[in-house]
Amino acid sequence: MLTGVHVAFLGGDARQLEVIKKCVEMDATVTLIGFDNLESTFQGVHLKELEPKILEDVDCLILPIVGTDEDGYVESIFSKKKLKLTEEFLSHLPKTSKIYTGMARQYLKNLTNDLQIDLVELLDRDDVAIYNSIPTAEGTIMMTIQNTNFTIHGSNAIVLGFGRTGITLARVLGALGAKVKVGARRPEHLARIYEMGLQPFYISELAEQVKDVDLLYNTIPHIIVTAKVIANMPHHALIIDLASKPGGTDFRYAEKRGIKALLAPGLPGIVAPKTAGIIISNVLTKLILEQFGDQGGN
Amino acid sequence: MLTGVHVAFLGGDARQLEVIKKCVEMDATVTLIGFDNLESTFQGVHLKELEPKILEDVDCLILPIVGTDEDGYVESIFSKKKLKLTEEFLSHLPKTSKIYTGMARQYLKNLTNDLQIDLVELLDRDDVAIYNSIPTAEGTIMMTIQNTNFTIHGSNAIVLGFGRTGITLARVLGALGAKVKVGARRPEHLARIYEMGLQPFYISELAEQVKDVDLLYNTIPHIIVTAKVIANMPHHALIIDLASKPGGTDFRYAEKRGIKALLAPGLPGIVAPKTAGIIISNVLTKLILEQFGDQGGN
Amino acid sequence: MLTGVHVAFLGGDARQLEVIKKCVEMDATVTLIGFDNLESTFQGVHLKELEPKILEDVDCLILPIVGTDEDGYVESIFSKKKLKLTEEFLSHLPKTSKIYTGMARQYLKNLTNDLQIDLVELLDRDDVAIYNSIPTAEGTIMMTIQNTNFTIHGSNAIVLGFGRTGITLARVLGALGAKVKVGARRPEHLARIYEMGLQPFYISELAEQVKDVDLLYNTIPHIIVTAKVIANMPHHALIIDLASKPGGTDFRYAEKRGIKALLAPGLPGIVAPKTAGIIISNVLTKLILEQFGDQGGN
Amino acid sequence: MLTGVHVAFLGGDARQLEVIKKCVEMDATVTLIGFDNLESTFQGVHLKELEPKILEDVDCLILPIVGTDEDGYVESIFSKKKLKLTEEFLSHLPKTSKIYTGMARQYLKNLTNDLQIDLVELLDRDDVAIYNSIPTAEGTIMMTIQNTNFTIHGSNAIVLGFGRTGITLARVLGALGAKVKVGARRPEHLARIYEMGLQPFYISELAEQVKDVDLLYNTIPHIIVTAKVIANMPHHALIIDLASKPGGTDFRYAEKRGIKALLAPGLPGIVAPKTAGIIISNVLTKLILEQFGDQGGN
Ligand SMILES: NC(=O)c1ccc[n+]([C@@H]2O[C@H](COP(=O)([O-])OP(=O)(O)OC[C@H]3O[C@@H](n4cnc5c(N)ncnc54)[C@H](OP(=O)(O)O)[C@@H]3O)[C@@H](O)[C@H]2O)c1
Ligand SMILES: NC(=O)c1ccc[n+]([C@@H]2O[C@H](COP(=O)([O-])OP(=O)(O)OC[C@H]3O[C@@H](n4cnc5c(N)ncnc54)[C@H](OP(=O)(O)O)[C@@H]3O)[C@@H](O)[C@H]2O)c1
Ligand SMILES: NC(=O)c1ccc[n+]([C@@H]2O[C@H](COP(=O)([O-])OP(=O)(O)OC[C@H]3O[C@@H](n4cnc5c(N)ncnc54)[C@H](OP(=O)(O)O)[C@@H]3O)[C@@H](O)[C@H]2O)c1
Ligand SMILES: NC(=O)c1ccc[n+]([C@@H]2O[C@H](COP(=O)([O-])OP(=O)(O)OC[C@H]3O[C@@H](n4cnc5c(N)ncnc54)[C@H](OP(=O)(O)O)[C@@H]3O)[C@@H](O)[C@H]2O)c1
Repeated sequence: MLTGVHVAFLGGDARQLEVIKKCVEMDATVTLIGFDNLESTFQGVHLKELEPKILEDVDCLILPIVGTDEDGYVESIFSKKKLKLTEEFLSHLPKTSKIYTGMARQYLKNLTNDLQIDLVELLDRDDVAIYNSIPTAEGTIMMTIQNTNFTIHGSNAIVLGFGRTGITLARVLGALGAKVKVGARRPEHLARIYEMGLQPFYISELAEQVKDVDLLYNTIPHIIVTAKVIANMPHHALIIDLASKPGGTDFRYAEKRGIKALLAPGLPGIVAPKTAGIIISNVLTKLILEQFGDQGGN
Repeated sequence: MLTGVHVAFLGGDARQLEVIKKCVEMDATVTLIGFDNLESTFQGVHLKELEPKILEDVDCLILPIVGTDEDGYVESIFSKKKLKLTEEFLSHLPKTSKIYTGMARQYLKNLTNDLQIDLVELLDRDDVAIYNSIPTAEGTIMMTIQNTNFTIHGSNAIVLGFGRTGITLARVLGALGAKVKVGARRPEHLARIYEMGLQPFYISELAEQVKDVDLLYNTIPHIIVTAKVIANMPHHALIIDLASKPGGTDFRYAEKRGIKALLAPGLPGIVAPKTAGIIISNVLTKLILEQFGDQGGN
Repeated sequence: MLTGVHVAFLGGDARQLEVIKKCVEMDATVTLIGFDNLESTFQGVHLKELEPKILEDVDCLILPIVGTDEDGYVESIFSKKKLKLTEEFLSHLPKTSKIYTGMARQYLKNLTNDLQIDLVELLDRDDVAIYNSIPTAEGTIMMTIQNTNFTIHGSNAIVLGFGRTGITLARVLGALGAKVKVGARRPEHLARIYEMGLQPFYISELAEQVKDVDLLYNTIPHIIVTAKVIANMPHHALIIDLASKPGGTDFRYAEKRGIKALLAPGLPGIVAPKTAGIIISNVLTKLILEQFGDQGGN
Repeated sequence: MLTGVHVAFLGGDARQLEVIKKCVEMDATVTLIGFDNLESTFQGVHLKELEPKILEDVDCLILPIVGTDEDGYVESIFSKKKLKLTEEFLSHLPKTSKIYTGMARQYLKNLTNDLQIDLVELLDRDDVAIYNSIPTAEGTIMMTIQNTNFTIHGSNAIVLGFGRTGITLARVLGALGAKVKVGARRPEHLARIYEMGLQPFYISELAEQVKDVDLLYNTIPHIIVTAKVIANMPHHALIIDLASKPGGTDFRYAEKRGIKALLAPGLPGIVAPKTAGIIISNVLTKLILEQFGDQGGN
């Protein structure tokens, strides 16, 4: 239980609601800032304005997935007011408290660094990234079906990268009946790909491998799908690039060659905000419980 | 090869193009009626107007998937002219020839019956229905992802009917990580469902089974998802009804209860027209070859 | 419940015990004939000798999986006495009763025919055959691993026949990572094989298909794996023939060519007698309940 | 190619033959020591006695999977002579050369350390361990079927450890239709287990999880399946312990409680020596090529 623990939420979107719900269930003291338009308020939850004094006895401060922008502004779909996380404001937070967010921009990193407050970036965690790979793969499947006139079943698909997202996507495509090749650079990855019943290749041979590809998916956050690669692909092929902006594809050249290439960021929040919220909420609650729960760690 | 065989196409959509291509490759004599706006014409193919004499030496006449409407009109996305298949016109077709279509309306059935011409309904065939179940399942997956805020993975899904479409859909949902129950009425179906690693139940127990369902799919062409069933479902559940119009769902009651219910006809042609065309084209070519090919049947 | 229903068991093996257990649970009156060495007797069960009068008020008589042999003898692993099912003995059974067995030999068929008593052959039923295909496939997997020096994963496997056993075996082999081809003769079977992600071919092309086969499995109860087929197989290949005796393989020629070929009858009873017993017991109990149960059919 | 590279093999079993074959194909100079009874000799290969001078121009020395025993003896199934790898003998090997083995005992480690010769232990490598997990899993499946009277399909299975072997085994059991739980200790492992459609739990909760287990598999090389755990298991359950000797099971207590528990070491070499040989041979050849091949690294 979180009895006596004070959790403050600053801004957010639908995903935050799952976390708030869980904190309430665990009997935490919950303060919401920037939720003035929230319709279904939770029992015993306090809606507050963005005022420094509010933070004075807060144990954890929970920011939205994107934390702040580069100027310190925090987004909230539940408020029309501008919310800025200033140094002044944050300096009221006790040094023993923790800030949780999805991913931090430089602004937030600097601020917490200066003030020596612990900052936890949830999307960095392997478990969160693996859970999120599930809605990401489903979103990718949806986009594929929307953007092709053939079925995934029976098509030649290539997945680049065999990390947290690539593993899941490759499995799902195989399960749907695609002939899946996966490009990676480590021998142990090639071994696992083979064991999974998929066809491994070294990413260095990519240009050779795409000659009959129908569906090319990239998860490697570097320029990988170069003009040279694209030049070898058939015209009807579709590229979906999942790597974080700006992706790993030479989009300019793809367009020139008439090959459809899509950058697809943020799929979990788009196709399955509820699941995405539950993922964050489960991990966050577990972390808060381990840190502040009465038992420490159960 | 189809050398010397005369194949006429009357109307159609993109799917027809695959069949035309294959007939041309096999050296058939090909006549197209109602394709005046067709851009990429095929080599050696004759575009003709709808005139009775055209049919006089035709061996097979290929109509669009839907054949004619109830008044005898044939649709063509490649022509603005109205195409009507009259008795007068059809009477010029030799008695030894065959007419192929997807599904025949009563108008066409009566006509061919009166004239004693063989009519082959391709969508009736088990093999075509099974091949088509693949794009149908992918279209269903796409609609599911579009219409929910949670992932298929981990959700409770129910498939009603374990025929050509139901088997495929159940397998695909399972492969995507849903917990899948399948409702059927034959003991041997329950056995196969169990063997596939899914959870079988007798359709007669449907009202009990839906209490925690997230996704309900119907493939049974009878009223199955009744008000009584819907009344037991959770509010966030989604119903997708694949059975041919009017489906097997009490849509009126679903709406009243605030449960989203979608009727989803014709998915193969919508989400994967190219694959759907290849399916028809493969089977059609095989049938024409068996009937008219030089070797009969290879 | 089976209160008041009199069920007699004549002979059998370990599989019978599951059925007896279930009948006792359902409160049937249970008589066991030929179980004199049975160690763990069930509460309220009567051990009897093979005497005509015993059958006089029996509602169902349950014989072992193999019924009788061609001379009328019934096997029992629980007795050293010879048990013969004579016409004299059986004539005491009421005409309204039913006899259940796995598979009947001609002797038993003639007898029941003459006496006009209903005979139910359980292994004939589709549901039983499908449930049994699971232990059959597992037994086949075990034999394969025992008889090869390479893994199933990555090997070229062929399954002949796409019936109740073939479907299951093909799926299991695919799941273990083999490259699976399935030979069948119906176009709708080829479609389903393709949908399952396996590679279909017409059985008529078998001789061509085996050139690089590592593992060949037959489920077709006709001579299919002929000398001509075997002549095309690589030497290291293994043939496992599951079809009922004498199988569908030219074993003489296989031996001559030095290709290991095994006939593998009765796998469920060998590798998973407990599961095999539960399968029979579940279906049998359901049938008895439908026939004699207080509610008829639930 | 390996033209001009001198590869010497000292002792070994059937698995070694695949490596020899590949080296010959790549045009290496191949010397075999301790293969005097080898029947099918390879073209251009030299059979030699164990004499120090032989090693003088050797580039790589390949030992059997187990290297030497603790006294320096090397096993060979192809020779009756005793082969001892002495310091005297090994000191003739050029300092630039490499020794490859599966796993090294302390004797061999000390020797190569003293002589400053590179020693490569192949079974340590992640890729080799993952490839080997495939025959290991198949051997485990075979042992399971042999040692139970029920099917894997439908049974409750638990896999302990989610490393190179555990991942593969868990997937295979799931593919065969078992209900699979996997115990691990890292949150990212629990996430991946969930994504794979299996049921994760923290290994610390093991004693609770085994209450209805039918099949318990251990891959963790520590005492994990303790008396406390075994005390909670049903009597009919089977334990297969794959962890290297002495395994992670309290075998004494299992026996006392009447629960069958098997230690199953070295499965790849037992159930699929050919595949095991190819695995070693592929990786070994790749390493030799990278080290000594004309191109270095392709
Ligand atoms: N679009 C969305 O909705 C969405 C959702 C989730 C993630 N993402 C994005 O997708 C990307 C991948 O995320 P992830 O969680 O899967 O990350 P990850 O686990 O780190 O995987 C990245 C993969 O890329 C490989 N890689 C990196 N640099 C490489 C190079 N130079 N050459 C070859 N391979 C290279 C890595 O291989 P090694 O293991 O050999 O290093 C690894 O397999 C990230 O950019 C992430 O932000 C997008
Ligand atoms: N939306 C689309 O894009 C799309 C695509 C393909 C098909 N469809 C439609 O989907 C429906 C199913 O097609 P299909 O090819 O799968 O047909 P199918 O193979 O005939 O399967 C129909 C299933 O419904 C069951 N069923 C029929 N009446 C029943 C009843 N009264 N109670 C319980 N079960 C009953 C059948 O069970 P038994 O085997 O016991 O008879 C069978 O399992 C059709 O209406 C078809 O037009 C739609
Ligand atoms: N060894 C064991 O432990 C074990 C266990 C179970 C069963 N069995 C035996 O295995 C065999 C198959 O059993 P099952 O339950 O799978 O039977 P099934 O469902 O009737 O399947 C038999 C298959 O063989 C095909 N077939 C029959 N004659 C053919 C022919 N002339 N050419 C091509 N295909 C042909 C059938 O095709 P169509 O559908 O086109 O007719 C069907 O796919 C039987 O002999 C059975 O006794 C053995
Ligand atoms: N019987 C055979 O034929 C055969 C074949 C192959 C391997 N093996 C043996 O099987 C064992 C596993 O091999 P592997 O290649 O899979 O090794 P691995 O990749 O290192 O996996 C070992 C697993 O054990 C877990 N683990 C280790 N200590 C633990 C602890 N104290 N508590 C909880 N989990 C713990 C590890 O978890 P973390 O990732 O959290 O550390 C890891 O998941 C070894 O002993 C190996 O020699 C036997």
